[in-house]
Amino acid sequence: MKQPLISIIMGSDSDLPVMQQAADILGDFGIEYEISIVSAHRTPERMFEFAGQAASRGIKVIIAGAGGAAHLPGMVASITPLPVIGVPVKSSNSIDGWDSVLSILQMPAGIPVATVALNGARNAGILAASILATHNPDLLNAIIAYKEKLKQAVMEKAAKLENREK
Amino acid sequence: MKQPLISIIMGSDSDLPVMQQAADILGDFGIEYEISIVSAHRTPERMFEFAGQAASRGIKVIIAGAGGAAHLPGMVASITPLPVIGVPVKSSNSIDGWDSVLSILQMPAGIPVATVALNGARNAGILAASILATHNPDLLNAIIAYKEKLKQAVMEKAAKLENREK
Amino acid sequence: MKQPLISIIMGSDSDLPVMQQAADILGDFGIEYEISIVSAHRTPERMFEFAGQAASRGIKVIIAGAGGAAHLPGMVASITPLPVIGVPVKSSNSIDGWDSVLSILQMPAGIPVATVALNGARNAGILAASILATHNPDLLNAIIAYKEKLKQAVMEKAAKLENREK
Amino acid sequence: MKQPLISIIMGSDSDLPVMQQAADILGDFGIEYEISIVSAHRTPERMFEFAGQAASRGIKVIIAGAGGAAHLPGMVASITPLPVIGVPVKSSNSIDGWDSVLSILQMPAGIPVATVALNGARNAGILAASILATHNPDLLNAIIAYKEKLKQAVMEKAAKLENREK
Amino acid sequence: MKQPLISIIMGSDSDLPVMQQAADILGDFGIEYEISIVSAHRTPERMFEFAGQAASRGIKVIIAGAGGAAHLPGMVASITPLPVIGVPVKSSNSIDGWDSVLSILQMPAGIPVATVALNGARNAGILAASILATHNPDLLNAIIAYKEKLKQAVMEKAAKLENREK
Amino acid sequence: MKQPLISIIMGSDSDLPVMQQAADILGDFGIEYEISIVSAHRTPERMFEFAGQAASRGIKVIIAGAGGAAHLPGMVASITPLPVIGVPVKSSNSIDGWDSVLSILQMPAGIPVATVALNGARNAGILAASILATHNPDLLNAIIAYKEKLKQAVMEKAAKLENREK
Amino acid sequence: MKQPLISIIMGSDSDLPVMQQAADILGDFGIEYEISIVSAHRTPERMFEFAGQAASRGIKVIIAGAGGAAHLPGMVASITPLPVIGVPVKSSNSIDGWDSVLSILQMPAGIPVATVALNGARNAGILAASILATHNPDLLNAIIAYKEKLKQAVMEKAAKLENREK
Amino acid sequence: MKQPLISIIMGSDSDLPVMQQAADILGDFGIEYEISIVSAHRTPERMFEFAGQAASRGIKVIIAGAGGAAHLPGMVASITPLPVIGVPVKSSNSIDGWDSVLSILQMPAGIPVATVALNGARNAGILAASILATHNPDLLNAIIAYKEKLKQAVMEKAAKLENREK
Repeated sequence: MKQPLISIIMGSDSDLPVMQQAADILGDFGIEYEISIVSAHRTPERMFEFAGQAASRGIKVIIAGAGGAAHLPGMVASITPLPVIGVPVKSSNSIDGWDSVLSILQMPAGIPVATVALNGARNAGILAASILATHNPDLLNAIIAYKEKLKQAVMEKAAKLENREK
Repeated sequence: MKQPLISIIMGSDSDLPVMQQAADILGDFGIEYEISIVSAHRTPERMFEFAGQAASRGIKVIIAGAGGAAHLPGMVASITPLPVIGVPVKSSNSIDGWDSVLSILQMPAGIPVATVALNGARNAGILAASILATHNPDLLNAIIAYKEKLKQAVMEKAAKLENREK
Repeated sequence: MKQPLISIIMGSDSDLPVMQQAADILGDFGIEYEISIVSAHRTPERMFEFAGQAASRGIKVIIAGAGGAAHLPGMVASITPLPVIGVPVKSSNSIDGWDSVLSILQMPAGIPVATVALNGARNAGILAASILATHNPDLLNAIIAYKEKLKQAVMEKAAKLENREK
Repeated sequence: MKQPLISIIMGSDSDLPVMQQAADILGDFGIEYEISIVSAHRTPERMFEFAGQAASRGIKVIIAGAGGAAHLPGMVASITPLPVIGVPVKSSNSIDGWDSVLSILQMPAGIPVATVALNGARNAGILAASILATHNPDLLNAIIAYKEKLKQAVMEKAAKLENREK
Repeated sequence: MKQPLISIIMGSDSDLPVMQQAADILGDFGIEYEISIVSAHRTPERMFEFAGQAASRGIKVIIAGAGGAAHLPGMVASITPLPVIGVPVKSSNSIDGWDSVLSILQMPAGIPVATVALNGARNAGILAASILATHNPDLLNAIIAYKEKLKQAVMEKAAKLENREK
Repeated sequence: MKQPLISIIMGSDSDLPVMQQAADILGDFGIEYEISIVSAHRTPERMFEFAGQAASRGIKVIIAGAGGAAHLPGMVASITPLPVIGVPVKSSNSIDGWDSVLSILQMPAGIPVATVALNGARNAGILAASILATHNPDLLNAIIAYKEKLKQAVMEKAAKLENREK
Repeated sequence: MKQPLISIIMGSDSDLPVMQQAADILGDFGIEYEISIVSAHRTPERMFEFAGQAASRGIKVIIAGAGGAAHLPGMVASITPLPVIGVPVKSSNSIDGWDSVLSILQMPAGIPVATVALNGARNAGILAASILATHNPDLLNAIIAYKEKLKQAVMEKAAKLENREK
Repeated sequence: MKQPLISIIMGSDSDLPVMQQAADILGDFGIEYEISIVSAHRTPERMFEFAGQAASRGIKVIIAGAGGAAHLPGMVASITPLPVIGVPVKSSNSIDGWDSVLSILQMPAGIPVATVALNGARNAGILAASILATHNPDLLNAIIAYKEKLKQAVMEKAAKLENREK
C-alpha cells in the first residue's frame, strides 16, 4: 500500500454511508487515503494518538465526520497542525442537523475547522484534493477537468429540458 | 486547604463572570471546590490529564463551562467516570447561544453531560450540591433550606406587590 | 422487591419506547429502579405527591422524560431536593424537538434540571448511575468497565473498516 | 375592594414591567383584577393553592406571565378549569424568547393555554376582557370602542404622513 | 338546528383533519358549533363578512385554524370583538410549522389571538368551552369532569406500567 | 401632483424609518409614489378599500412593510391583482425578525408576495422600479446606470484598500 | 416559436418537479416562456451569459429556483436589470429549507430578489404574470378571473363542509 | 512587493474590521497576502475576473468574507480550482448571522467552501497557513509554535485563577 495523504475518520460506523462519498471522490482523483473510525467520546485516547501522529505519519489533510454534539473534527484540530475538514453528519437523534453543524463550525479563535455542508462528504474530498493541488499541478488540472465534467453534465440536462416537447 | 469535592473548569477566562456563580453557590453551601481554566482546544493534553485524574484526586463532580463549539464538557465526560455538569456560556461570537447549548447537550449514547441552562452556572453549583447530598443528609437539609429561602423571597415580593397602591 | 434508588417517570405512555432505555441501562448496571407515568398536566396532584415523597421513600435520583411543553422535570425539581435528570422526548406534534429541549433545559436560577440530549434516555440512566457511583466504588468501576466496552466496540468496527477491501 | 374577576400572576418580579401592561388595560376597561407573584418553581405549593382556589374565589380568567422554561401558565392550567392566558416574557438569559414561547404554547392535548405574543401582556388583558365580554354587552361595546380608537390613531398618523411635504 | 355558540373556521379543506378535533371535543361537551372554510387570502370578502357578523349572529367564540403565512386568525381578530382562538396548522410546504406559529402568535398590541399549540385543535375546543364556562356552571363542572377523566386514564396506564413484569 | 405609480404603505408609523428608504430610492429614479399608513389589524376596512381601489386609481405596484405577525402585504395581495412587494420590518418585540419574514414570505399557492430582505425597503423600491422598467426603456437604462454606480463605489473602495500602507 | 417573455431557470434538474409549476401556471395564462437549467456553481459562465443577455433577448421577467446555498437568483439579479423572482427549493440535504430561503431572501441593498415561499414556484409564475399585467389590461383581467376561480373553489368546499351531516 | 500566496477578499468595506484579522494573522506568520474588496453582487464581472485569474497569478488559497445572502465565497469557488475559505460575517441587517452562515456553508456537491465560524476571520487565516504548510515544513513548525503559545497563554491564566485568594 502506498503512503496515504488523506485520512478519513468518522465518529461512528453509522456515519459510513455519508463519509464513503469522501473516499469515493478521492479514489476518483487517484489520491491515496486511509479510512477508519475514531470516536472522540468513546475512544478519546485513540483520538489523541491519531491526531498527535497524523502529521509525522505523512498525512497531509484530515477529513473528520461526526453527528450530534460533534467534537471529533474540533478536537483533532486542537491537536494536529494539519488542516482538518469537518463534515457535519445528520444522525438519527439530531435536532435537524443543527447540532452537528454548530458544534463543528463554531470553533474558537486559534483552532479552525474547515466545515462543509451537512452530509457534504463529497465536498470534503474535493476540498482535500484542492489542498493537495496547491503544490501539485497535475492534480490542479484534474480538479479543473472535474469541474468541466460537472459543467458538461448540466449542459446536457439543460439541452434535454430545453428541447422537450411542451 | 481541604480536599475539594467539586472541580469547576472553564474553557476561557472570559467565561469566569458566568462560572464564578457556580463557585459562589458552592461556597454558600460550604462545599470545597477548586476552580481553573482547562481549554479542550488550546490545552488538550491538560484537559486529558485533568479528566483522567479527577476521580483519583478525590473529585466527586465536575462542572465544565464553555462557549461556541463547546467541547470541554463532553470531552471531559468521555474520559472521566464522574458526573459532568455542562454550562453553555453565551460567548461573544456565539450564534445566540445555540452553538454552545447544542454542542454540550446533544452527546451521543454512552457519554452523558448533565446540561443546565444557557449561562446557568448557579444551577450547575446547586446540581453538584444535590449530587453530593444523595449521600449527605446535612447537605440535603441545606438544599431544602435553600429552596425555602427562595420561596420566602418570592412570598415577600408577592406581598409587596399585592399591597402596593393601585 | 428491593428498595429502588432511581425513579423513572414520564409524562405519557407514548414516551415509554424512549424512556425504557433508561430502565434497560440501569438494569444492566444492577441498579434498582421503579418506573411509572406521572403527568404534570393531567395528574398534577400525583406529581406533587410523587415529588414531595421521593426523597423520604429512599429514592436518590429522579429521571423524568416528557415532550412538547415539557414541565414534568422542572416541576418535580421545584419540589424535591433530589437531583432530577430531564429527558426531552420528541413527541408527535413537537416543533422538531425544540419545545421539549427548551422547556426542560432553560430552568431559572435556583432550580436545576440535569438535561440530556433529545431522546437521550440511555444517557439519563448512565448519568444516574454515575451520581450513585460518587459514593459507590464498585459502581464507579462498573461505569469504567462500561466505557471500556464502548471503546472495544469502536475498536472492532474500526479494525473491520480498516481491513475491508477497497 | 370589589371582587376581582381577573387574576394576573407572574413568575418573578422581574416580569412586572411587562405584566403591568395587562393590569393597565384592564384598569382602562374598568375591570377588577388582582395582581401578584406566583412562582411555579420557587413556590410550587402556593401555585397549587392559587390555581386550586381561583375558580371558587370568583376569578373568571387567569393571566400568567413567565420567562425561560416558563411552566407557570401550563401548570396553573393543569389545575384550574378556568381559561388561562399565557404571556411569554423575554427574560435576561432567554434564548431569544424561544424558550418561553415554546414552553407556554406547546401544551399537550387536554390542557390548553391561550398564548399571546412575546411580551404581549397588553393583548393578554384585552383577551381577558373579550372573554368576560362574551356575557357582558357593555364590555363588548367597550372593546368595540377601543378598536375604534386604535383605528382613529392610525387614521391620524396616516393623514399626517400623507400630508407632509416631500 | 340550535344557535351555534362557537364558530370553527379554517383556511383550507386540507386543514380539516386537524380542525375536526375542535369540533369533536365541542360535540363531546354538548356545545353547539358551526364549521366552515373561510380563506383570508382566497375569499377576503367572505372573511370580512364572516368576522363582521359573527357577534351579531350570536357566536361567542371563534376558532380559526390556518397554515403557512396564517393570516386568518389575526385578520378575523382585527374585525370582531369576540375572542379568537388561533390554531397553527402544519401544512405541507410549511417550514416545520414555524411560519404558522409565528404568524398567528406574534400579533401587535391591541389585537390578541389566543394561540394554541401546533395542530392543537382539540385544545382550541377545550379553551372555547372554558370561555363559555366562565358564565355557565354546568359547563365548568363538565370541564372539571373532563380533566378528571384525563387523570383517570393516566392513573390506569401508570398502574399497568408499574405492575408489568420486568 | 402627478399620478403616483407606486404606493408605499406600512402597518405602523414605527415602520417609517425603514420604509422611507423605499420612497427615497423611488425619488432618485424620478418615479411618482404615494406613501401612507394602512394597518391590516387596526384599520381593516381601510386596508380593504385601499387594496380594492389601487389598480383602478392607476397604481402599478404596491410596496407594503410590516413587522411581527405581518399580515398587511399578504392581505393586500389577496385583494388586488397588482404585484405586491413585502418588506419584513424588524419591530421591537419581534422574535429576531423571524415572525415578520415568515408571515410575509410563506404565502399559500395562488397569492404571491414578492418578499425582500428583513428591513430591505431600499430593495423594495428598486424592485418596483424594475417592474415598471419592463415597459419603460428609459427606466431600464436608469437601473443599469444605478448598478454601474454601485459598481464604481465598490471599485473606489477596493482601490483605496489595495493601496493603503500595510 | 413565439418570443418568450418569461425565462424560468433552475440550478439543477432535481428542482424540476417544483419549478414545473411555474411553467404550468404561465401556460394557463397563455404567457410565452422558456425553461432551462442554469447552475450558478457548475456553469458560472453560462449563468453570466444568460443573465447578461436576457434583457436584450426580449425577456421581461426571470424566475430562478435553487436549493441549499442558493446563489442563482441573487447572482442573476446582480447582472440583469430585469426583475428576478427567486424560488427557494427544499433540496435533499437542505437544513429544513432555511438555507435556500435565507440565501435567496437576504440580498444586500442594491440588488433585490423577489422571493416567494419555499417551493412556491406556482406563486412565482403568478407574480411574473402580474408584473407583465402592469402594462397589459387583458392579462390583468385574467389574473382577476384567476383569483375569482380560487374563490369559487373555496366557496364550493365551504358549502360542502357546511352541509355535511354531523 | 513579493508574490502574494493568499488573497483575502470581502464583499463590502463594512466587512473589513472582521476580515482584517485574517490579514493580521497571516502577517504574523510572515505569509504574503493581498487584500481587496470584490462584491459578487455589485461587481460580478470583477468577481469573475478575479476568480478566473487567481490560480494563474500564483495565488494558492482564497479567503472570502461576506454577510447576509453571502454568495461571494461560493461563486469564487465555482470558478477557481483553488481552495476557498469562507468567512460568514454578521452584518447589520443579518438575521442573527444565520443567513451568512447557511449561504456560505450549504454548497452543493461538487463545489466546496471551507467554512469557518461566524466572524471567524482569524481562523480563516490560520487555516490558510495550515494549507500552505502541507508543503512547507517551516510553516508547519510555525503553526505548532503558535498553538504552543495559545497553550501557554491559557496555562498562565489558569495559574492566576488557581492562585487567587478566595
